[in-house]
Amino acid sequence: MTNEVLLLSGPNLNLLGEREPKIYGTETLADHVSAAEERARSHGLVVRHLQANDEGALVESVHGARSTAAAIIINPGALTHYGWSLHDALAAFDGVVVELHLSNPEWRESWRRTSVIAPVATATIAGLGGAGYPLAVDAVAVLLDRQRPR
Amino acid sequence: MTNEVLLLSGPNLNLLGEREPKIYGTETLADHVSAAEERARSHGLVVRHLQANDEGALVESVHGARSTAAAIIINPGALTHYGWSLHDALAAFDGVVVELHLSNPEWRESWRRTSVIAPVATATIAGLGGAGYPLAVDAVAVLLDRQRPR
Amino acid sequence: MTNEVLLLSGPNLNLLGEREPKIYGTETLADHVSAAEERARSHGLVVRHLQANDEGALVESVHGARSTAAAIIINPGALTHYGWSLHDALAAFDGVVVELHLSNPEWRESWRRTSVIAPVATATIAGLGGAGYPLAVDAVAVLLDRQRPR
Amino acid sequence: MTNEVLLLSGPNLNLLGEREPKIYGTETLADHVSAAEERARSHGLVVRHLQANDEGALVESVHGARSTAAAIIINPGALTHYGWSLHDALAAFDGVVVELHLSNPEWRESWRRTSVIAPVATATIAGLGGAGYPLAVDAVAVLLDRQRPR
Amino acid sequence: MTNEVLLLSGPNLNLLGEREPKIYGTETLADHVSAAEERARSHGLVVRHLQANDEGALVESVHGARSTAAAIIINPGALTHYGWSLHDALAAFDGVVVELHLSNPEWRESWRRTSVIAPVATATIAGLGGAGYPLAVDAVAVLLDRQRPR
Amino acid sequence: MTNEVLLLSGPNLNLLGEREPKIYGTETLADHVSAAEERARSHGLVVRHLQANDEGALVESVHGARSTAAAIIINPGALTHYGWSLHDALAAFDGVVVELHLSNPEWRESWRRTSVIAPVATATIAGLGGAGYPLAVDAVAVLLDRQRPR
Amino acid sequence: MTNEVLLLSGPNLNLLGEREPKIYGTETLADHVSAAEERARSHGLVVRHLQANDEGALVESVHGARSTAAAIIINPGALTHYGWSLHDALAAFDGVVVELHLSNPEWRESWRRTSVIAPVATATIAGLGGAGYPLAVDAVAVLLDRQRPR
Amino acid sequence: MTNEVLLLSGPNLNLLGEREPKIYGTETLADHVSAAEERARSHGLVVRHLQANDEGALVESVHGARSTAAAIIINPGALTHYGWSLHDALAAFDGVVVELHLSNPEWRESWRRTSVIAPVATATIAGLGGAGYPLAVDAVAVLLDRQRPR
Amino acid sequence: MTNEVLLLSGPNLNLLGEREPKIYGTETLADHVSAAEERARSHGLVVRHLQANDEGALVESVHGARSTAAAIIINPGALTHYGWSLHDALAAFDGVVVELHLSNPEWRESWRRTSVIAPVATATIAGLGGAGYPLAVDAVAVLLDRQRPR
Amino acid sequence: MTNEVLLLSGPNLNLLGEREPKIYGTETLADHVSAAEERARSHGLVVRHLQANDEGALVESVHGARSTAAAIIINPGALTHYGWSLHDALAAFDGVVVELHLSNPEWRESWRRTSVIAPVATATIAGLGGAGYPLAVDAVAVLLDRQRPR
Amino acid sequence: MTNEVLLLSGPNLNLLGEREPKIYGTETLADHVSAAEERARSHGLVVRHLQANDEGALVESVHGARSTAAAIIINPGALTHYGWSLHDALAAFDGVVVELHLSNPEWRESWRRTSVIAPVATATIAGLGGAGYPLAVDAVAVLLDRQRPR
Amino acid sequence: MTNEVLLLSGPNLNLLGEREPKIYGTETLADHVSAAEERARSHGLVVRHLQANDEGALVESVHGARSTAAAIIINPGALTHYGWSLHDALAAFDGVVVELHLSNPEWRESWRRTSVIAPVATATIAGLGGAGYPLAVDAVAVLLDRQRPR
Repeated sequence: MTNEVLLLSGPNLNLLGEREPKIYGTETLADHVSAAEERARSHGLVVRHLQANDEGALVESVHGARSTAAAIIINPGALTHYGWSLHDALAAFDGVVVELHLSNPEWRESWRRTSVIAPVATATIAGLGGAGYPLAVDAVAVLLDRQRPR
Repeated sequence: MTNEVLLLSGPNLNLLGEREPKIYGTETLADHVSAAEERARSHGLVVRHLQANDEGALVESVHGARSTAAAIIINPGALTHYGWSLHDALAAFDGVVVELHLSNPEWRESWRRTSVIAPVATATIAGLGGAGYPLAVDAVAVLLDRQRPR
Repeated sequence: MTNEVLLLSGPNLNLLGEREPKIYGTETLADHVSAAEERARSHGLVVRHLQANDEGALVESVHGARSTAAAIIINPGALTHYGWSLHDALAAFDGVVVELHLSNPEWRESWRRTSVIAPVATATIAGLGGAGYPLAVDAVAVLLDRQRPR
Repeated sequence: MTNEVLLLSGPNLNLLGEREPKIYGTETLADHVSAAEERARSHGLVVRHLQANDEGALVESVHGARSTAAAIIINPGALTHYGWSLHDALAAFDGVVVELHLSNPEWRESWRRTSVIAPVATATIAGLGGAGYPLAVDAVAVLLDRQRPR
Repeated sequence: MTNEVLLLSGPNLNLLGEREPKIYGTETLADHVSAAEERARSHGLVVRHLQANDEGALVESVHGARSTAAAIIINPGALTHYGWSLHDALAAFDGVVVELHLSNPEWRESWRRTSVIAPVATATIAGLGGAGYPLAVDAVAVLLDRQRPR
Repeated sequence: MTNEVLLLSGPNLNLLGEREPKIYGTETLADHVSAAEERARSHGLVVRHLQANDEGALVESVHGARSTAAAIIINPGALTHYGWSLHDALAAFDGVVVELHLSNPEWRESWRRTSVIAPVATATIAGLGGAGYPLAVDAVAVLLDRQRPR
Repeated sequence: MTNEVLLLSGPNLNLLGEREPKIYGTETLADHVSAAEERARSHGLVVRHLQANDEGALVESVHGARSTAAAIIINPGALTHYGWSLHDALAAFDGVVVELHLSNPEWRESWRRTSVIAPVATATIAGLGGAGYPLAVDAVAVLLDRQRPR
Repeated sequence: MTNEVLLLSGPNLNLLGEREPKIYGTETLADHVSAAEERARSHGLVVRHLQANDEGALVESVHGARSTAAAIIINPGALTHYGWSLHDALAAFDGVVVELHLSNPEWRESWRRTSVIAPVATATIAGLGGAGYPLAVDAVAVLLDRQRPR
Repeated sequence: MTNEVLLLSGPNLNLLGEREPKIYGTETLADHVSAAEERARSHGLVVRHLQANDEGALVESVHGARSTAAAIIINPGALTHYGWSLHDALAAFDGVVVELHLSNPEWRESWRRTSVIAPVATATIAGLGGAGYPLAVDAVAVLLDRQRPR
Repeated sequence: MTNEVLLLSGPNLNLLGEREPKIYGTETLADHVSAAEERARSHGLVVRHLQANDEGALVESVHGARSTAAAIIINPGALTHYGWSLHDALAAFDGVVVELHLSNPEWRESWRRTSVIAPVATATIAGLGGAGYPLAVDAVAVLLDRQRPR
Repeated sequence: MTNEVLLLSGPNLNLLGEREPKIYGTETLADHVSAAEERARSHGLVVRHLQANDEGALVESVHGARSTAAAIIINPGALTHYGWSLHDALAAFDGVVVELHLSNPEWRESWRRTSVIAPVATATIAGLGGAGYPLAVDAVAVLLDRQRPR
Repeated sequence: MTNEVLLLSGPNLNLLGEREPKIYGTETLADHVSAAEERARSHGLVVRHLQANDEGALVESVHGARSTAAAIIINPGALTHYGWSLHDALAAFDGVVVELHLSNPEWRESWRRTSVIAPVATATIAGLGGAGYPLAVDAVAVLLDRQRPR
């Protein structure tokens, strides 16, 4: 089994550290990706990261992961709420899928409370800010370990 | 009048034959396109095919068809349910539009029951699997024939 | 396997050719049935037709088809929207069911957008006017062929 | 122009005078029909009456009226709330349609507040008990008179 | 018992004959009031008419009618849909209340389908244009007659 | 007081034993009627049974029961969910009404959770399969006994 | 700080003692105002009362109170449910606002359960009949006392 | 297999015979339990009864029944409408579950029409008053008999 | 008639003075109970107080009050919004029921706007903070006085 | 064609500059009217202004404008959300209608997001504070110019 | 402060002048951009224009504007109704945002009445056709001027 | 600062390992608590665990934690969906709150998709089965660390 974890960041996440710091904190996306990579190494996993502001690019990245990655960690940004194409792409991915949110969506506008990604996510982690990135990698490690033949 | 039929396949349809074969069957998109092309030839029509995972690309393809194609057959994938830009592009296309679905959306999740494409489609064909492709071409032939001056 | 196809026409379809010709065209129901019969012959199939303005008669016709027909093509008229008894009768029919509409229901009143028949239909064809009748027979032929042992 | 008015009474109206007299009064349906006939004579009109507990019979009666009657007065009983086939039949009738209710539906259960017949009725009269019958005939006379060429 | 009938016309009805003649006809409100007065005389009734564009004036007119009138005929105009104060005033009136509409509200915008006046109206007459005025007077005569001691 | 119990079976129940045996069991409707008849005899009651696929026939059967039967047991089939005419007929029946379902509607499609019959049923028994028939007769016996003068 | 309390009574409250005495009791509005005035004197407050059947008059009365009154007690009558202009006027009043209802709105029609005044009321008192008037004055006294500098 | 039947009575049922006798009758809960016990003996079953006003106590009683009882008869009182913890406890019980209501919930307030217990109940009996208790025991006997190996 | 008033405080009210002081003030529950007791003495009434975090305990306290108390004042805390068992217990209490809230629920989260207790409360007082306690006692005194035979 | 522009200000707008200055700014309504007048002069137009707190007065002002004004600029205040009579009056005005809001309704309470005026407004301008007044005049000038015969 | 104004045109706006000219007029997008540029020059502003059929491209254009532009004028096309990523991008832009629509969305299909862009727009201008472009530039000029230090 | 973490398990969680093992796995609650305790030790934290089937007990446990614990990890079981009292108790807790679910609620019945606990939870972890327990402890450690003064 491959040890690659695809880490996907949806629209506007490239602004992390700049946009609404009271909600999202001052760390940048690069900081979060580094923390995830470091944690992945401790589990013998490798992180490949992609940020895109375009649903099509994310869909195609998931398609590619079908043959290369064991798991996907995805922070879908606003596509969480209407990205049905992304939903279908993830439904066609056989590995582990962890949905990650920096803030707890329940604390924000009501339209942020519906996730079209959740029905195809194995697990969800929300509200931990940047600390969610390494924790999501831990979650992936646990979920992959559970699938391992014994 | 042009004899071109634009055949459009939306997000994730490039995975046909691989993704959820119980629902979509084991034939690939290429198989379906070939069947459509062959049937088109029998009607003196020519099929031009585009698959895209990106709504913008589909929108622009419809714009192009305004001057080149007599009809559009579209399987919008998940954009069926939220692709309002695609809806507006099709509304600006004067020819025949046939909406095509491999499976019957009524048999699946409730959110798949609403189509934002249907209000701009002349006709709908659903639930026939790959066999829907040549049938949709037959439908186009009938609809174009009806418009023909006599 | 029987080669009979039961063609059912629901309430008010006996007025075809007279009622709202802008929506439904000027051909009569008899014209559409003839076209279906002719197309059926080309597939080695036989069409038996019934029009009824009464849900009970349609329900009993479906019961009868359980032992005599391989497929049902049904244009349920207004029963599309509230004929739950017809739904249950079709659910008890093991063969192929094709739901047929002359016009695209999406182009009309909002209450015409919900079909209680769709959840028990294998396939749906809508918006082709009278040309939908022979096409529905083609669809039945394809669907029966798929079930044939090889 | 024909001088016939088809008076239609829907399900359970044959029980008038027996059922829930506090709501519907103690006069029978025959009493109401007589009153309508008498009033019709004063306008040079003829009433033909049908009561049926079956939607199909009412639909077919409306079909027949297409060639024989100038107007329809209909008290649809409970079909008021779900008789979409009856709606479609009335939509195909070119003459005057008056919807008649003995009681004011607003005073009863909430599901009685929606009428699927109203969108195809020229006029509505409700809440007058049996006195609504001759008044509905007056209404028909006025509406027919308005259509008369001068 | 008094023989006065209060005829109330709500906001914008003073424009009758000028506003949207396709829906409301070309007769003026004065024409309709005259027709009602004439019909009233034939029943030994007297019509007093008030048109107001202000809910308060209509409410106070209903208050006054509590001691002077046997019946109210009201065409509430747009107050039909939100005039809860008018509803409460009519609920405090012990006589007959007839709700009158020139057009059938079901044929117009969806918000016109809810009447807050209907729950306090004895009867409703809609869709007869100006001819509804004398008919509403007939309805009042019938309803008053029914209350008369014998 | 009459000792007749009218047992009514709605649309499609003639298929019992054939249709969806996992939900409804393999016993036929005749088996259930026999069990009800036998249980009725033990209470000094007589069962008269009617199955119809047509709402009108059921409505008229309820009308007839007004002068002949002390109670009605009704399994309305799909009319449970839209049979408002049947509702009105039962509302005009003065005796005991027991609504009977073979399966628990809560375990099936969401539209099966609303019963338009329940508001006019004295009691409801659901989920016991064929064993519900004799139990419904027991329930009728108890309810009739309670009405008996002492 | 001024010691004036503006007491506002909305549409139809002038009928108190006459209208639906089972719900509202037999005391008149004048009785309630007297009771409020008397209680006010015991707190060193002065009541100014206005009843109006017109939303505009109430709005302007609230405007006037901005410079003269320390508190408003308002029984908005039916404007409770749709008087958004009154809502905006009260929102622009800086003093205490007590919403007062004679009956408990929860015991009446469902549309009486929504108050558009509540979001701008400091406190609500309902269900005490006429006794609510002096109690509302007590409530005003308490709330004003709380604001007093110490 | 154990012959114990756990009979559970939810909040406020200890008041039976005192509270709202028009709806619930004058017999006490003890009367109903006795009747159930007696009927159980005739089937070789033993009834153990618990009434609690606290959801937690009912949940724990269901947990205990997992190892001791073959069936549960539950009248959940108001927990019918919001007792999701009770729902989950019953979902974890492998035996027969019969939901019992004294009155027909359809005849009461609208919020009583939704049962969160029904989705985990094998069968439902409602509207028979106290006579429902022995009938529910009969139902349990039938359902247990059906499971018995032959 | 007993002179006892049961004062009930629902879940979390024991935290008053500590929890969200901006909304609820800094006085403790003991302060409020003392104020109520003192005011009760002035009316010749006696207050018995219970705070519970458990719906069952509150239900049983209401049961006990059926034979000992003339009135109940209840601040149901969050049970206001889902405590249907508490609703049923209060419905079985024949005396006066006053629902009391410290803050105006309309100023807070939308789910706090629905009260399941209101339909069984004689009166409601909200938004007065701790001052609502003695005022609720005044309200009880008025309501009891009204019931007194004269 | 007349060069008059009727500028209408709805309920509470006379408080501008005093009420909620954070939302509406500190300029008064007179300031805004002056700015509009000045801008009108530059287009050869004349502004006539009316502020009213009463829907009836606004309705009658619109009626008057039918013969005197070429355009109406209306800031309906809270009537935006329920002023259906005002809607009907504007529907009967043949000239240009511009709906004007000082703040962006989307930034405020949810009930402010629905406008019953919008369906009869040619254009909408919102969110510019007082600067919206002269801009609305510019909009009127453009729209009138477009209608001018050339 | 920069004097750049980013003018963004969403999907299908490149078809302006060709698509549905009855709604959108016959001028092209280039015509509108020119008019905006000319008006900008008169205010000392510079317009940079982008049209895209792809949400990702618009999002990235907004990101770029964070360091280069003082204001954004956006006509989002169909993304108005579901472009939550665009919403988030605009929320992260600190300058002025003006939402611009050629037609009044209230006059079209109901789904066009909800704007996900409005909550992040300072101001909205709709219904002026092409004339809205220079007016939106005027609005930007006013709004920027208001922010200027004095 | 205290190093105690209160771990709360709601109704039915004592059945873990027995109930629906396909959804919840075969490990017992004791196994999960041990894993959490072990992980806590590695962070210098101490876990105190309580399982209760009763909302009141959980509420009081949260009250106690106000003076003893730095964080709460809560798996509320079915109270997730209606435990508003628990919500209010957690809202009064100043420390960190982590909501924990074994399965992803999105994969189950629709009523499990609404959490009344989420609005008062700092973070949420779902779908990891028993592995969620130590991960939730890691999350607590991170969140406490972030609050630590530096």
